[in-house]
Amino acid sequence: MKIVMIQDKFFDPSRVDDIYFDRGLYFGDGVYEVLRSYKGKIFALDDHLARFERSMKEISILGLDINKVRERVEGAFAKAAIPDAKIYFHVTRGSGPRGHSWDDEMKPNFFLTVSELDDSSEIKEKGVAVSLYPDLRWKRCDIKSLNLLANVLANQDAVKKGCFEAILVNDDGYITEGSSSAFFSINDGKLITTPLAKNILPSITRKYVLKAAKTIGLEVIEKLLRPEEVKAFEETFIGVTTRDIVPVVEFDGVTIGNGMVGKLTKSFIDTFEIFTS
Amino acid sequence: MKIVMIQDKFFDPSRVDDIYFDRGLYFGDGVYEVLRSYKGKIFALDDHLARFERSMKEISILGLDINKVRERVEGAFAKAAIPDAKIYFHVTRGSGPRGHSWDDEMKPNFFLTVSELDDSSEIKEKGVAVSLYPDLRWKRCDIKSLNLLANVLANQDAVKKGCFEAILVNDDGYITEGSSSAFFSINDGKLITTPLAKNILPSITRKYVLKAAKTIGLEVIEKLLRPEEVKAFEETFIGVTTRDIVPVVEFDGVTIGNGMVGKLTKSFIDTFEIFTS
Repeated sequence: MKIVMIQDKFFDPSRVDDIYFDRGLYFGDGVYEVLRSYKGKIFALDDHLARFERSMKEISILGLDINKVRERVEGAFAKAAIPDAKIYFHVTRGSGPRGHSWDDEMKPNFFLTVSELDDSSEIKEKGVAVSLYPDLRWKRCDIKSLNLLANVLANQDAVKKGCFEAILVNDDGYITEGSSSAFFSINDGKLITTPLAKNILPSITRKYVLKAAKTIGLEVIEKLLRPEEVKAFEETFIGVTTRDIVPVVEFDGVTIGNGMVGKLTKSFIDTFEIFTS
Repeated sequence: MKIVMIQDKFFDPSRVDDIYFDRGLYFGDGVYEVLRSYKGKIFALDDHLARFERSMKEISILGLDINKVRERVEGAFAKAAIPDAKIYFHVTRGSGPRGHSWDDEMKPNFFLTVSELDDSSEIKEKGVAVSLYPDLRWKRCDIKSLNLLANVLANQDAVKKGCFEAILVNDDGYITEGSSSAFFSINDGKLITTPLAKNILPSITRKYVLKAAKTIGLEVIEKLLRPEEVKAFEETFIGVTTRDIVPVVEFDGVTIGNGMVGKLTKSFIDTFEIFTS
C-alpha cells in the first residue's frame, strides 16, 4: 500500500493506526455483545459469554479465549464502578491488508465500553409504539455479528415515525423480531413468540422471559405471527438487554388492548425485577 | 461513557480516537468502492462514482458531495503515481455514541487507500477454479455496503477448497453472483448472466462485459441459472474490477469445456484490453 487518505488528508500507511485496517470496518467481520448490570451486578453474564463464544466459533474467530473475555468484562465493570451500567464489547477478526479471505493467524481486535445506562422508568409505565419494517437481514441472524445495516435502517425508519422500535417482517409476511429486540405478544392468556432458528437472534432476554412465563404460570407458544393477528391481541411487549421488558401499547398505528400497559406484561416486569435483584 | 478497553488496556474515552466509535465498526454502516487503473488511467471512474453516490443515497449518507469524492480519488491516484493501481475507498455515516438510529447531522468518515495491483497474467492464461456457497447475504446487495460477512465466509470457504472464488447460490438453487465478482457463462454461442435486481450488485465490470458482447457480436441472455446447467456449458468466467475478466475452467469440481480458457472468453479478455487501453 502506498497511500492512505483519511477525510482529505494523505498519510504514509506505515504511520496509520492499525484500527483503520480492521476487518470490522472493511467487512463487519466481527461479533459483539451488550450486557447490563442491575445495582452493581452484571445480569446473565454466563449466557452472554456463551452466546459470544458461539458467535465467534460460527465465523471462525478462534484466537480469543472466552475466559479472557470474562476477565476483561469483569475487570472493566469493576473499574467503571457504575451500579447500573451498559457494557458493550466486540471482537473483530483483526487488522490487515483488505482481502475477503483471511489468515487463521490473525490477531483479533477486542473493544469494550462501559457506560451509564439510560433506563428511565417512564417507558415501562407508559409503554411504547412500534412500527413495521421489512426484514432485510442476512440469513444467519443467529450470529450476533457487526453486519447490522439492515437493523440500522429499520430502526431509523421507526424513529422517523416517532416509534421506539421497528418490528421486522419477513418476505412471507411473518414477524421475526425487533431491529434490536425480541418480540412477544399475549393472547388468550398465552405468551407467543417467534421460534428460534437461523433467522433469529437467540435473545438472552427471551430466555428469561420464557423462564418468567413459567414463574407466572403462562403457557408459551412458539410460532410465527402476522402483524394483522398481533393487532387484535391483548398485550405485546419487546425484550431488550438494556431495559429487559418494554411494554408495547401501539403496534403499527393500532392501539393494543386499552392502550395501557397490560396486566400480564406488568407481571413480566415484576418477575424480571426478582430475577435481577 | 466511562471506560474504553482496547485489547486488555483501559482508556479514558475522551482520549480514544474517534475511529473506534465509527458506525462502520459498530454496524458496517457505510458503503465503498474499488477501482483500478490501467497504465496510469483510472478505468470507469464515472461509473464507480455514480454507483457510490447511489449507494450513499440508498442508506441516506448525505453529507459527502460526490465531486469531493472525485477530487480525493484523483488527487490520491496522482500522488501515489502507480500506473496499475488499486484504489479502495469507503465512507461511513460517522463516529458517535453507539445507537442504531442516527442523527442526520453526523459527519461522514472517508477512508481511501491506493495500492500496487497484483494482476499476474497467469490466471488469465490458465483460468481458475470456483466453488459453490450458499448466498447468505442481506436483501439489498444492490447497495455496495460494508456488511460483507456473508461474502467473507463464502470466499474463505473457496480458498480452503483451493478455489479462486465462491459462486453464490440462493435458496431457490439459482446462482446469483460471486462473493466479490459477477458471474458469466457462455452456451450455444450466447452470453448468459444474472439479471440485475436488489439481490445483485450492479457490477461495473458486468456493464463493460455486456458492451464487449456487443463488440464481439454475442447475444446476451439475462436469466437465472442452476449450477447443474452451468456444468454442461461451454465456457464460464467471472468479472471483477481489479482483474476484469477471469476465466473459470473448473466449476464446483467439474471441468468446463476442455479445461482450457475458452475461445469466446479470450475474445472478452481481448476486447477489455481495447476498452482499458
